[in-house]
Amino acid sequence: MTHRESLHKAAGNGLIHRRHLLGLGLGGLGVAAAGQVLGADQAMAFELPAWSRRPGPGPSRYGQRSPHTDHIGRLAGDPNPLYPGGGASRSPLHLLQGTITPNSLHFERHHAGVPAIDPAGHRLVINGMVRQPLAFSYEDLLAYPMVSRIHFLECSGNSGTLLGASPVDGTAQSIHGLVSGAEWTGIRLADLLAEAGVLEGASWVSAVGADGASMGRSIPLTKILDDVLVALYQNGEPLRPEQGYPMRLFVPGWEGNTSVKWLTHLKLGTAPSQFRDETSKYTDTLPDRSSLQFTFPMGCKSVITSPSGQMALVRRGLYQVTGIAWSGAGTIRRVEVSADGGASWADALLESHQSEKALTRFRIPWDWQGQDAILLSRAIDDRGNVQPDRNTILAERGNLSTYHYHGMQSWAVGTDGNVRNVYV
Amino acid sequence: MTHRESLHKAAGNGLIHRRHLLGLGLGGLGVAAAGQVLGADQAMAFELPAWSRRPGPGPSRYGQRSPHTDHIGRLAGDPNPLYPGGGASRSPLHLLQGTITPNSLHFERHHAGVPAIDPAGHRLVINGMVRQPLAFSYEDLLAYPMVSRIHFLECSGNSGTLLGASPVDGTAQSIHGLVSGAEWTGIRLADLLAEAGVLEGASWVSAVGADGASMGRSIPLTKILDDVLVALYQNGEPLRPEQGYPMRLFVPGWEGNTSVKWLTHLKLGTAPSQFRDETSKYTDTLPDRSSLQFTFPMGCKSVITSPSGQMALVRRGLYQVTGIAWSGAGTIRRVEVSADGGASWADALLESHQSEKALTRFRIPWDWQGQDAILLSRAIDDRGNVQPDRNTILAERGNLSTYHYHGMQSWAVGTDGNVRNVYV
Repeated sequence: MTHRESLHKAAGNGLIHRRHLLGLGLGGLGVAAAGQVLGADQAMAFELPAWSRRPGPGPSRYGQRSPHTDHIGRLAGDPNPLYPGGGASRSPLHLLQGTITPNSLHFERHHAGVPAIDPAGHRLVINGMVRQPLAFSYEDLLAYPMVSRIHFLECSGNSGTLLGASPVDGTAQSIHGLVSGAEWTGIRLADLLAEAGVLEGASWVSAVGADGASMGRSIPLTKILDDVLVALYQNGEPLRPEQGYPMRLFVPGWEGNTSVKWLTHLKLGTAPSQFRDETSKYTDTLPDRSSLQFTFPMGCKSVITSPSGQMALVRRGLYQVTGIAWSGAGTIRRVEVSADGGASWADALLESHQSEKALTRFRIPWDWQGQDAILLSRAIDDRGNVQPDRNTILAERGNLSTYHYHGMQSWAVGTDGNVRNVYV
Repeated sequence: MTHRESLHKAAGNGLIHRRHLLGLGLGGLGVAAAGQVLGADQAMAFELPAWSRRPGPGPSRYGQRSPHTDHIGRLAGDPNPLYPGGGASRSPLHLLQGTITPNSLHFERHHAGVPAIDPAGHRLVINGMVRQPLAFSYEDLLAYPMVSRIHFLECSGNSGTLLGASPVDGTAQSIHGLVSGAEWTGIRLADLLAEAGVLEGASWVSAVGADGASMGRSIPLTKILDDVLVALYQNGEPLRPEQGYPMRLFVPGWEGNTSVKWLTHLKLGTAPSQFRDETSKYTDTLPDRSSLQFTFPMGCKSVITSPSGQMALVRRGLYQVTGIAWSGAGTIRRVEVSADGGASWADALLESHQSEKALTRFRIPWDWQGQDAILLSRAIDDRGNVQPDRNTILAERGNLSTYHYHGMQSWAVGTDGNVRNVYV
C-alpha cells in the first residue's frame, strides 16, 4: 500500500480526512508541489543573491508592502459620472489568508464617496426621545471605556450576481469580495445612550453619516442595546477614511450599510425613518411583488477561496481546499466540503481562533488526479442555521432582488485544471 | 447616595469593579468626559460641515490612512553608521487599541537592514541530517497546506531599560514597544521536514536569513515539530519586507529573533550552531559572571498602555485603565491592576477573544479625583506563571544583562495629572 492509498478518504472525488492537516500523514507525499530534490554536493552551492551581500535600509516609521505584492488590490467598478463617489470595491479574497483583512484591503461601499473629515470639526449628536440631548467631539469619545471585538462585515449586495440567470465568469473577489474581517474597537452605544437617558417608548434609532449622501439607516433599539458599537479603531489603528473615520456605527452580524460610516447623528424615536437606503434600496422584492424590508442579519454562508474562479490547477496531486465562513446569527460550528457537486460531503478543519459573527477559515486536503470536479462548501452555525443551495433560495424568494444572497458557491474544475463559476 | 457612591469599589485608590464595564452602571456618570449638553432648540442647529455638502472620492485599490492620524508611527533610534541598517523601531502601544497590530506599525528589529528580495530568486534549502535535502521556491510553498494563528511577537530586548539604575522618562512605546500582535499564516515546518525525512539523532535546527547579516539562530527540533511555522502571510496579506518577505520562521511564544526573517536555510544537526546572536548577544550574564544561554520562551507579562508615561490626565473623573498582556508559555487567564503601588489589587476585564501566546487586552474603570497614584498591572497565565515585580527580578539575576525583562511596569500619576515611569 502506498502512502497515498493510506490516506483516510473523507468523501467522494478525492476529499481526504481533515485530520491529515494536523500532522498525521501528509508528509512525504509531495503534499502539493514537492521541493526540488538536491544532490548532497549541491545542497549549499547556491550563489548568494545580491540582497544578501550588503545591508539594506533600516527601520522605518510606517511600513509599506513589497513591490512584488502590488498585484493584490481591491476591485472597483468604473466611476459613474451620474453617481459621483458612489460604488464599491471588493476584497481580493482569493489572494488573502487567515481571517483578518488588512485595513487597506477591506471592502468599501460608498453612496457619495469618502468625506475628508477633520475630527476637530466633527460632532456626534444624540437627540430625539432622550432625557438630555448630547453632542460628543472625537476627543470626548476617546476618553470613554471601549471594547474590542473581531467581526465580519458584509454588504447585503454581496454575491447577488449568483441569482442571475446564467453564471458569470467571475472570481472569489468579483463575486464575493464585499465581505471582510477585522478587530473593531469602540464604545458600546448603550453606554452613551445611558448618559443621554432613553425615554420610555423609544424603540428605534436613526443613524446618519456625515458623507455627501447623508446616508441613513434605522435600527431597532433592542439591537443597539445588545452589541452595537460606535467604532473608533479597526485592527488596532484609528479607522481609515473609507471605513468611516473618525467614527462609525458597527452593528455586528447585520447587513453592512446599517454600520453607518462617518456617524454624526443618532435620533431616538418610535419608528424607522424610512430612509432611501431602507426603502428603494436594500429591500427584497418577492415573486408576488411585495417587498421584504429590514432583513438585518446576514445569513449563514461560506465560500471556497482556493481553488476558485479563474484559477488553474497546474499539476496533479494533493491540494488544500480553503475558504471562509461566517454567520450573522452566531459562530460557525462546521463547514462541509463536497468535490462531487454535492453527492457526498466531508467536514473541513476550522481554525481554532473563532469569535461570534466573525470570519472562520476552513481547510481540507483534496487529491486531484485530473478528473472533473465540482467543489462546494456549506456552513453551519451554532444556532443550527445551514447554508442553503441556490435552488432553495430561488424557490423561496425568486430573483427579482439580489440582496442577501447566502446560497452555496459551486466551482467547476475541468480536466484542464481551469476553475469556473457554475450552477448545479 | 449618588450614582458615583453606588459603584462597587474593587481595590484601593479609586479602582472600580470591572463589571461596571459590562453595561452595569457607568452610564449617567459622565464616564470619562461627558458630551456637551444641548438645549432642545440647539440640538439640530449645527452647520453642515464642508465635507457633507459634496461627494468625495470613490473607492480605491489600496487604502491609506487619514492625514489626521499621521502622528501615529513607529519609533526608531538614529541610524548608526557603524551598523548600517541595524536597529529597531517600536510599536506605538499608547496610541493603539485591541490586540492586532497593523502591519505598517508592527515593531521591527534588523541586524543588517531590510533586504529587497525578489521572491522569484529566493530559495529555502533544508539539509543536514535529512534523508533528502530539498530546495523550495516561493511558488512551491504557496501550494502547501497552511494554518493561521494569532500570536504576539516580542524582542527579548523589550523593556530592558527598566533594569537600569534610575527610571527613564519614557512612554509605553519607547519602553515596551518591541512587542506586537498579528494573525500569522504559514506552513507547519513539521510538514516540510517530513518530506525531507529527519534522520535519527537530529535534535537541533539552525535557521539562517537572507539578509546582509545572514542572521542565524538554533532551535531545538522538539519545538520545531510542536508549533513552528514557515510564515508567508501576516494579518491576511503577504509578509511585509521588514517582517521577512517572502518568508520567515515563526516560533510562537519564543524570543523574537528566533523567528528568523527572510528565511533561506534550515540545517538539521545534533547541536546548536553557536551563532553570533545566541552567544555574544541574546544571552543573560548573571551576577557571578556566568551566562544563561537559550532563554527561549518570553515571560508572563503585561503593561498598562493608558494612562502611561508622558500622558497627562486633564480632568477629574472616571478613566478606563487599559493595556495588553501576554505569555510565551500559554494563555493569559487573569490581569490584576493596582492604583496604590501594589497595596491592593483588582481583577481587570479581559477581552473575550483570546488565543494561546497572543496579546490579550485588559480594562478596568478607575475614578481619579486628583490624588497621587501608582498604577501597576500583573499578568497570570494558564500555566500558573505570575508576572514578577522588578525587585524580584533584580534579586534573582541582577542587571548585568537587560534581555528577557518581564517585570511589572509602574506608572506614577501626580496631583497635576502627569504620568511618568517610576520604580516602586
